[in-house]
Amino acid sequence: MAKINDNYLKLQGSYLFSTIGKKVREYEAAHPEKKIIRLGIGDVTQPIAPAIIDALHKAVDEMGAAESFKGYAPDLGYSFLREIIAEKDFKNRGCNIAADEIFISDGAKCDCGNIQEIFSTDNTIAVCDPVYPVYVDSNVMAGRTGDFDDTLGQFKGVVYMPCTEENGFVPQIPAEHADLIYLCFPNNPTGAVIKKEELQKWVDYANKSGSVILYDAAYEAFIEEEDVPHSIFECDGAETCAIEFRSFSKTAGFTGLRLGFTVIPKALKIDGVSVHDLWARRHGTKYNGAPYIVQRAGEAAYSEEGRAQIIEQIGRYKENAKIIAEGLKAAGYDFSGGVNAPYIWLKTPDNMSSWDYFDLLLEKANVVGTPGVGFGPHGEHYFRLTAFGSRENTIEAMDRIKKL
Amino acid sequence: MAKINDNYLKLQGSYLFSTIGKKVREYEAAHPEKKIIRLGIGDVTQPIAPAIIDALHKAVDEMGAAESFKGYAPDLGYSFLREIIAEKDFKNRGCNIAADEIFISDGAKCDCGNIQEIFSTDNTIAVCDPVYPVYVDSNVMAGRTGDFDDTLGQFKGVVYMPCTEENGFVPQIPAEHADLIYLCFPNNPTGAVIKKEELQKWVDYANKSGSVILYDAAYEAFIEEEDVPHSIFECDGAETCAIEFRSFSKTAGFTGLRLGFTVIPKALKIDGVSVHDLWARRHGTKYNGAPYIVQRAGEAAYSEEGRAQIIEQIGRYKENAKIIAEGLKAAGYDFSGGVNAPYIWLKTPDNMSSWDYFDLLLEKANVVGTPGVGFGPHGEHYFRLTAFGSRENTIEAMDRIKKL
Repeated sequence: MAKINDNYLKLQGSYLFSTIGKKVREYEAAHPEKKIIRLGIGDVTQPIAPAIIDALHKAVDEMGAAESFKGYAPDLGYSFLREIIAEKDFKNRGCNIAADEIFISDGAKCDCGNIQEIFSTDNTIAVCDPVYPVYVDSNVMAGRTGDFDDTLGQFKGVVYMPCTEENGFVPQIPAEHADLIYLCFPNNPTGAVIKKEELQKWVDYANKSGSVILYDAAYEAFIEEEDVPHSIFECDGAETCAIEFRSFSKTAGFTGLRLGFTVIPKALKIDGVSVHDLWARRHGTKYNGAPYIVQRAGEAAYSEEGRAQIIEQIGRYKENAKIIAEGLKAAGYDFSGGVNAPYIWLKTPDNMSSWDYFDLLLEKANVVGTPGVGFGPHGEHYFRLTAFGSRENTIEAMDRIKKL
Repeated sequence: MAKINDNYLKLQGSYLFSTIGKKVREYEAAHPEKKIIRLGIGDVTQPIAPAIIDALHKAVDEMGAAESFKGYAPDLGYSFLREIIAEKDFKNRGCNIAADEIFISDGAKCDCGNIQEIFSTDNTIAVCDPVYPVYVDSNVMAGRTGDFDDTLGQFKGVVYMPCTEENGFVPQIPAEHADLIYLCFPNNPTGAVIKKEELQKWVDYANKSGSVILYDAAYEAFIEEEDVPHSIFECDGAETCAIEFRSFSKTAGFTGLRLGFTVIPKALKIDGVSVHDLWARRHGTKYNGAPYIVQRAGEAAYSEEGRAQIIEQIGRYKENAKIIAEGLKAAGYDFSGGVNAPYIWLKTPDNMSSWDYFDLLLEKANVVGTPGVGFGPHGEHYFRLTAFGSRENTIEAMDRIKKL
């Protein structure tokens, strides 16, 4: 008789954003006249840049003609894209990453969720608290955690690294040993960033302890300040201890196009086994490449024209972050983030619970945000707003929040 | 210290098609003047149909305009696509499958590889021998098998179901119990099909024994004969024991666009747990939806115009299958398949090993096929040719084979 993977039964409720979606749909159904503004899920709102649209049309035409039609893509991605990424995102920043250390995929969420597969279920994971739910849930599914502890609001057997006001939402290296350490900077959900010298300490620790750092840099395009690293590979020795996830979603508005990549240096070995080769094998067996047309779109994001258009788009989201920050300041909120990052992390007023504040905001201001506690117990009494709305909606949302 | 998933070390060599690719590249490098014809990997060669190209352009334009831009797709797929699939592929064939039992994905290979995750690692799997390597390899990676037995050429702890000339390449229900049974019809690699009354026996067996059938119907578009089922859900009671994988790759030439879907009926429960809900949770956590533009392309494949164009394309591949069959007959080969299926399964001449015949064909005829043994030990002395080449190349390949 077939048996299910009962690790799935340890998972708590629905995936955070599915729960939010359901609450919003129910509210909308009951109040069809209200105009709801979504500053919750980190989804972009600006259309894809013209240079990328042109590249898509061109690639679509290629698919429609016999002489230029493309079938299966290479499992690990087309060279034209891997080469340009290696050059523009890594070599130009002094990182020694080669094209064949870059694995093209359909997005950082998939890669972040799947990467744990190539590691033993015996490994202990460390995550920030609060944290993007995918890191933890994918490990729960694989049986790398114990049951959920209702009192603590955490899974047993996981090393949680609190990110608090006191440490500026940058975790300390944990006292307990962890084999796989998930870090995300600029951070989702707090918008915090890490300085290069601080990140270097993590790299040194990982190399010393034989840990692997799983570094989510999906929001690197929002970095403005000089001493904030765009890649963990800017740190010395990262190539023997780190894997990095990157995304076109927030950089170039690809949430609905699906494109990302993962960097695994060939120098990263465990007991003599190349982690790069394990991931290549996984990609070859369970994945079939990102669509050709989408890879061409990704390439266009690196062209001079495409890059200029993207920088302008990101600039608009950064403007929204400023509008939110100014609005919150005027309304007397404590908050952080929004600089080098598209997320603003605010303290709920009067020590309200995150979900109470979610309901208040939905019902009284018709604004959707994300309850901090959905990212972990240290997110309780916090709330995440995103800068990905339209300028007009962001201004209106802040007006409504100020009037609460 | 981080540890790798050492189940990966049980895997044999490279993924079959990577090995073939390497051999072909090496031959090409040494003989740049030779014109190689590929009838190996099951990749299509005809350009995407005009109605689908139009839909892609239209969707790309939507992504470029603020008022029609689409961000994250719904995790499980857009309703417009799920609805039309439910109607055209299932209701029209008398199958009771609803739109919300259809999960849109980036292809059947990914779904076939990932589906095992939602089942316990304690389950015993049964697979055909020969078999599409993804079913077995994904289970090896998850630790659902023992080591590879070099003598048998099989993994320990797996129930292999021989598909031979004697049983017409349709396996018998195994004497040993298996929890998860992978079936693929029309079959890859043998091109065999199963009659509806035979498939009903498997469904009855699975319902009786509490097994789950993982039914790969990626090649259903090639079915011509009346009594060959297009879906396992044509069988009575399949909704309580079966999951079906479908693909746009071979149906509509989407190998390079990436689109497929998996059907999990809500009635499929194990110990009261909905398998449908487990897969929804997996999709929500580790996947982020197929690109909007590709889902619109999928929708166009069901339009009157799109359907007519696709039928014409498939007709051309079927013509190729006939050309191969006639060529093999003229050259005195024993073979099967090629009717209701794009694959031809031939017996190597003079009892040659599959890889020796691969080398012979590559070196003497400059034709690439797939060694049967790459699909399992019962594939030894067999060889797979595909009908996905161009007509011109297929004719030339058969001329060369006839002259061997």
